[in-house]
Amino acid sequence: MGGDAAPGPEVAGAVAAVREAAPDDGFGARRRADAHARQPVGLEVVLVGDRVRLEAELARVGARGERGVTVEHATEIVTMDDHPGEVFRKKRHSSLRVATELVKSGRAQALVSAGNSGAVLSHALFVLGRLAGVERPAIATGFPTPHGPFTVCDVGANVDVRPSMLAQFAVLGAAYDRVVHRRALPRVGLLSNGAEPGKGTELTRAAHALVAAAAARPDAGFVYVGYVEGSDLWRGTVDVVATDGFTGNIVLKVCEGVAGALFGLVQAELGESRRGQLGGALAAPALRALKKRIDFAETGGALLAGVDGVVIIAHGASDTTAVKNAVKLADRFARAALPVQLARAIATSAQPA
Amino acid sequence: MGGDAAPGPEVAGAVAAVREAAPDDGFGARRRADAHARQPVGLEVVLVGDRVRLEAELARVGARGERGVTVEHATEIVTMDDHPGEVFRKKRHSSLRVATELVKSGRAQALVSAGNSGAVLSHALFVLGRLAGVERPAIATGFPTPHGPFTVCDVGANVDVRPSMLAQFAVLGAAYDRVVHRRALPRVGLLSNGAEPGKGTELTRAAHALVAAAAARPDAGFVYVGYVEGSDLWRGTVDVVATDGFTGNIVLKVCEGVAGALFGLVQAELGESRRGQLGGALAAPALRALKKRIDFAETGGALLAGVDGVVIIAHGASDTTAVKNAVKLADRFARAALPVQLARAIATSAQPA
Repeated sequence: MGGDAAPGPEVAGAVAAVREAAPDDGFGARRRADAHARQPVGLEVVLVGDRVRLEAELARVGARGERGVTVEHATEIVTMDDHPGEVFRKKRHSSLRVATELVKSGRAQALVSAGNSGAVLSHALFVLGRLAGVERPAIATGFPTPHGPFTVCDVGANVDVRPSMLAQFAVLGAAYDRVVHRRALPRVGLLSNGAEPGKGTELTRAAHALVAAAAARPDAGFVYVGYVEGSDLWRGTVDVVATDGFTGNIVLKVCEGVAGALFGLVQAELGESRRGQLGGALAAPALRALKKRIDFAETGGALLAGVDGVVIIAHGASDTTAVKNAVKLADRFARAALPVQLARAIATSAQPA
Repeated sequence: MGGDAAPGPEVAGAVAAVREAAPDDGFGARRRADAHARQPVGLEVVLVGDRVRLEAELARVGARGERGVTVEHATEIVTMDDHPGEVFRKKRHSSLRVATELVKSGRAQALVSAGNSGAVLSHALFVLGRLAGVERPAIATGFPTPHGPFTVCDVGANVDVRPSMLAQFAVLGAAYDRVVHRRALPRVGLLSNGAEPGKGTELTRAAHALVAAAAARPDAGFVYVGYVEGSDLWRGTVDVVATDGFTGNIVLKVCEGVAGALFGLVQAELGESRRGQLGGALAAPALRALKKRIDFAETGGALLAGVDGVVIIAHGASDTTAVKNAVKLADRFARAALPVQLARAIATSAQPA
């Protein structure tokens, strides 16, 4: 209920995800991997919020009584202006609170929210708690590039961090990358203003030593490549970039901004001459394919890594496609038991070498 | 002598800048704005370094004895591996030291170096000194965008900063923008992970109050728009972005990396189908014009703002065009007496309101 245009895109996106996960087999029944399985293979969504408004949106997309879609009533809404810490105590019947409790009780296996991300963090911390050994949860996400996606951790949960936290972001990011991007031994770098060890801040220099020590373990599960620069991100030379949430958030948004502006520009420039117009018309399908390949909305959302449950933070302005992809991401992360993988990585990195 | 491929691009670029500044009038004499002026209107360059190697490079570009080009011998070279502080004491006859002394003595009005940027900073500090009231010099540069350039300060001189320094970067950046981009009242923003005042780090929140106070003066010379996000940079909604040198350097390199990767991609994607190839061939001139409009090498270099003299830091990998543009930038900044403008801005911001 807390997204910028909620609950329209949330309901439509969730229904689309359920439908894509359960294609009709031609006889109206859901396809199953194993006909005898008690657990359905498809994806089920619980929409949490004002029942009347949610039912109205379901009716609008022709999904009243849709199989796999249920509604859980909640009376309050966490807004973007609510203080993350205070709202947890003040709005005990918010859709965010009720949804997080569903995950805690085991009735749901993942939470997706396009609302106040600070409040998502506080609710996840207070209701689900941290994984053992995790100092501070961080937001991990995949960046689409032409060379395939890379992982960045943290992209916004923690702005003022200690070296030990930053080193854990590297470990969490590597575990995310192994499961989500299926790289057995991802190359991990620490984002810095230069490649030489003398570069960086007091924070990165201290974290550098900690990450190098964690990577030196035979069972580390990642290779540490040292400092990486902003220009390295799109070169395909690093799989995981660890950084504080302030820098990571800025980098994420700069990438979105530059990519968006350049596409607009290419199209505008092509429109300026007859020759360019003809060229642009002929080139349009290739440009559209490319845009989709690097579109950040295609990713859908980011993982709140380090809490005891699958929590997906989607952009407040998420449209139907973005919500659909966020729900599919949540489904995939829950099936992979991503929190268990993250907890294992943190435990490994904490053992004496 | 300290650039990655020195002194080839440095000599060729400097000669090109001199030639462009002094077009032949058809009779072999330099054109002058005023025939009676004792000061030539053109640009003169002193190449500082190993005389034999510099003369050889001059011969290679057909510029031995070229008018406006002289050589000043220096026996030592500051390398990229030299420690900025130590090398100042150890290599007293380096090309960087001799060139900086030329500016100090008034024999030259600006310094351009593609060498070790930390050493350029230490030499500028020790030989030229800081402008009155400046806490720490910072690197300011223009970012080319389709909406025109914006200014970023700092892009790499200071990685661990105090709020008062960051507030000065805003003042220095605004003064740079007024002179270089000719905006009378630039809009200044503080780079952050969100637009709301509660966002940012301890550093940005403290700096926010200081910049707001400086902007509230009637003679401030800039408008403070508050926090700006990474996605705002390319939207044309802010003219000057103040940030610490760690974040600024990463943002600069991310922009370069994304823009470069996308252009390669557009061209590769267009090459994949017959239709795309034809479209690409027709669209090529428009794409080339666009590339030039946002090419970072076109900028040439960045200003070391806050030292008592014009000092331009060029990229270590600068080619002939980049060096030429850096020298032209130095010429332009010296004629505009940019350090005087910066000192005035700092003095104004320090006065009680």
